[in-house]
Amino acid sequence: MSKAPQSAITPTRTEDYPEWYQQVIKAADLAENSPTRGCMVIKPWGYALWENIQQVLDRKFKETGHVNAYFPLLIPKSFLEQEAEHVEGFAKECAVVTHHRLEAGKDGKLIPAGELEEPFIIRPTSETIIGASYAKWVQSYRDLPILINQWANVMRWEMRTRMFLRTAEFLWQEGHTAHATAAEAVEETMQMLDVYEWFAHEYMAMPVIKGEKTPGEKFPGAVNTYTIEAMMQDGKALQAGTSHFLGQNFAKASGIRFQNQQGADEFAWTTSWGVSTRLIGGLIMTHSDDDGLIVPPRLAPKHVVLLPIYRNDEEKTQVLEYCHRVKKELEGQTYMGDKIRVELDARDIRGGEKTWQHIKKGTPIRAEVGPRDMQADSLFVGRRDLGVKDKKGVGRSEFVSTITNVLDEMQKNLFNRALALRESRTQTFTDLSEFSKWFTPKNDAKPEIHGGFARAYWSADPADAKLINDKLAELKVTPRCIPLGEKVPPGKCLFTGKPTSTQVIFAKNY
Amino acid sequence: MSKAPQSAITPTRTEDYPEWYQQVIKAADLAENSPTRGCMVIKPWGYALWENIQQVLDRKFKETGHVNAYFPLLIPKSFLEQEAEHVEGFAKECAVVTHHRLEAGKDGKLIPAGELEEPFIIRPTSETIIGASYAKWVQSYRDLPILINQWANVMRWEMRTRMFLRTAEFLWQEGHTAHATAAEAVEETMQMLDVYEWFAHEYMAMPVIKGEKTPGEKFPGAVNTYTIEAMMQDGKALQAGTSHFLGQNFAKASGIRFQNQQGADEFAWTTSWGVSTRLIGGLIMTHSDDDGLIVPPRLAPKHVVLLPIYRNDEEKTQVLEYCHRVKKELEGQTYMGDKIRVELDARDIRGGEKTWQHIKKGTPIRAEVGPRDMQADSLFVGRRDLGVKDKKGVGRSEFVSTITNVLDEMQKNLFNRALALRESRTQTFTDLSEFSKWFTPKNDAKPEIHGGFARAYWSADPADAKLINDKLAELKVTPRCIPLGEKVPPGKCLFTGKPTSTQVIFAKNY
Repeated sequence: MSKAPQSAITPTRTEDYPEWYQQVIKAADLAENSPTRGCMVIKPWGYALWENIQQVLDRKFKETGHVNAYFPLLIPKSFLEQEAEHVEGFAKECAVVTHHRLEAGKDGKLIPAGELEEPFIIRPTSETIIGASYAKWVQSYRDLPILINQWANVMRWEMRTRMFLRTAEFLWQEGHTAHATAAEAVEETMQMLDVYEWFAHEYMAMPVIKGEKTPGEKFPGAVNTYTIEAMMQDGKALQAGTSHFLGQNFAKASGIRFQNQQGADEFAWTTSWGVSTRLIGGLIMTHSDDDGLIVPPRLAPKHVVLLPIYRNDEEKTQVLEYCHRVKKELEGQTYMGDKIRVELDARDIRGGEKTWQHIKKGTPIRAEVGPRDMQADSLFVGRRDLGVKDKKGVGRSEFVSTITNVLDEMQKNLFNRALALRESRTQTFTDLSEFSKWFTPKNDAKPEIHGGFARAYWSADPADAKLINDKLAELKVTPRCIPLGEKVPPGKCLFTGKPTSTQVIFAKNY
Repeated sequence: MSKAPQSAITPTRTEDYPEWYQQVIKAADLAENSPTRGCMVIKPWGYALWENIQQVLDRKFKETGHVNAYFPLLIPKSFLEQEAEHVEGFAKECAVVTHHRLEAGKDGKLIPAGELEEPFIIRPTSETIIGASYAKWVQSYRDLPILINQWANVMRWEMRTRMFLRTAEFLWQEGHTAHATAAEAVEETMQMLDVYEWFAHEYMAMPVIKGEKTPGEKFPGAVNTYTIEAMMQDGKALQAGTSHFLGQNFAKASGIRFQNQQGADEFAWTTSWGVSTRLIGGLIMTHSDDDGLIVPPRLAPKHVVLLPIYRNDEEKTQVLEYCHRVKKELEGQTYMGDKIRVELDARDIRGGEKTWQHIKKGTPIRAEVGPRDMQADSLFVGRRDLGVKDKKGVGRSEFVSTITNVLDEMQKNLFNRALALRESRTQTFTDLSEFSKWFTPKNDAKPEIHGGFARAYWSADPADAKLINDKLAELKVTPRCIPLGEKVPPGKCLFTGKPTSTQVIFAKNY
């Protein structure tokens, strides 16, 4: 890799988008498939992204009044069965624990033994097991609200998996709250949706549309599901986070009841909300290019990598000394409340190879320092959101004093360019055949490049659901959400022609 | 609870130590048993302790060159079988996943379906699944060392469980490192043992003895297991953390091989090390008293609780305003690098009840503020390590300016008193009948009050193991460790009379 190829990732995005995604993950050393079916190993660089995501969100959850707790991994089968829609949604894809030891069989090989009276399910989500605790904890309105979050691993035995986007095991946070009134629970649901939007915009530089899911796309057991939807570079949608108003459904299933201020017995109103390691998939697909990952500065494990260049031991000593000085100066600066994170990569490998490793890993700023740069008291600086060859000399003192501005510029640039893409690939349709054509790859286009986000009027009448869903299934398109906070004039459903005031965003999706 | 009883916890430590432990957990609202067999729910106050433990250790692991990653929860059965001692150690108590969905049976009830070709084990520890990755990652000595830690949940299907100390599921960190030489791996093993000792002493205020496990007490598959052992207030030992030198055993089982600098093929040398939520059990049993939990200041979720006292709305307004001011002033102070954590408990419940809640939860400093205190510009302050009634008026400015000193004094006091207890209950024995007597509860003593730590000479000859172990089993005593860094003169084994230079610490244990 000493000479730069056309691009560092093969294939490129236009050649084969899904394969490009896998190759970016590999080149950036984020994760790899594991010997456990459908599960991945999250490697240190990928896990560092997750740690940064956790840190920011955890702080925000606490600022909004939540505390963390931890509930069991295993859910008794009977708990899952308490809520009819819920079990329907999760029973088909769950890991079942049936035995509690291994024993040598006739051929000497170990076989499961100690069969359990009741099997356990590895949590696919924790409404039911957490509900059992809340039922014990809540007696009076004085015990409400309960505002708890959990950082945990969960399992859903998906048949088709893709790293970060859909894996059998994934890491997430799940908030579970219980309230004395419906209004308060709805307010919580919307507050957390806003937190997710804020995080996507401010930290991930990933523009999202807040919306409500149509009934067919709700969380199993929820009254309303709200979502943030992002557009990936291939025009497909990614559901990046959800917040559910559960009404009294789960409170009834778990028996969360309380005496209200008037002394009457009531069921509590609950919510749940979550984001997962899927966000990392979204981050990759939103920003990366044909040279690899691009990490938004506010989530970068390292903001700056210093790359010393030298030909002999004497130069090495001097250049490294200079780099250490620059590192210290940079670390004296703060960005988003933390000190600037600097890596000094002094490994003895060829400069070209080393630089390309950092390009592929997406570190925001690369600064090369050779003897001549040092003599000019300057560094040769490249920004990961600009072209690989777009580098320039910057005086040391300017470099240090402007670093936070440069990082913020990059952060904004990433957001704006993702927003521009989304806007360029969002269209409103009033004609079904145009809509269908837009979602049907043309012969001369790569099969993985799809239309984008299509807005269209949609009939909410349950009687029309089958007709609409059949048409959508044919096109492999799904309703992503009914955008929030928009007032649209009355119109006609794209599929049925019925009058409606609801517009939906449709897209192919991950 | 408006009048203080003799003590807040019933029974007291001397009345029934194990039950006292459960009651402290309940009174401090740390955790509770869950409907999932052997698993607990870690409630917010208990989880906040774990978060503080994680934060300090995680920082230290990173300072010592480690990075975090994440490996699958489920381990293929065949992986567990790769290392003979390892599978022997874990097969008897493991949760086995055999199916990947639930399906309606004949009676309409859900039954496990979709049987897996090969069952999976929920990780009891991750040497084998992590080893599989390392085998892929390591080719050359240049790929070594690998220094990775994982924060995760694990399961061991223990028959007898006790909250925090022994639960079917628990939270922990497991470090897994691979090195090019035995010496380097040994150095890593000892470094992490030192980190655990440092943490126990500096943060938990829990004195520990560093030592090596005798062969019978080693981690299954390890060459050497090192431990930190703490004495609980009933004289029993708690193994609080372990660090294992695994030699090449697991490298051979997983196939972690590399080309060394001379071009020859070698197996890597590996280590693993971990501490878990068990530390919280240790914290409780080391410091708490008959009024509930006592939290060492350096791990306290809140350092100070402000307790406003008033009789009417006018007083309430004034007192709360004053408290807010004190809170702000305290938060301007830093302790151990973070700002002082202050809770202003303005809940409308009776003062006595409120105060007792905070005593039972173990917050280091309680400061009551009534109208008269306010007029004197002072607070009525109690320290949780002193008697409940041992409170005194302290001027506001003195209170604020001395808070970090007071917290540190309390931290030291807790350590010293735990150390004094350990020293008072550690004896050296040269006579087996004295040793036996010491570990046999006298008629007039409570059955749960045991001798403590007994030092004695011990023969390392494997031929003597059975005789020694039988005698120990009779007394329900185990060898805890061979203390490190001690030079003892030659002596005679307490059990066999054989000459030996090894002294072991024996104790009953958790």
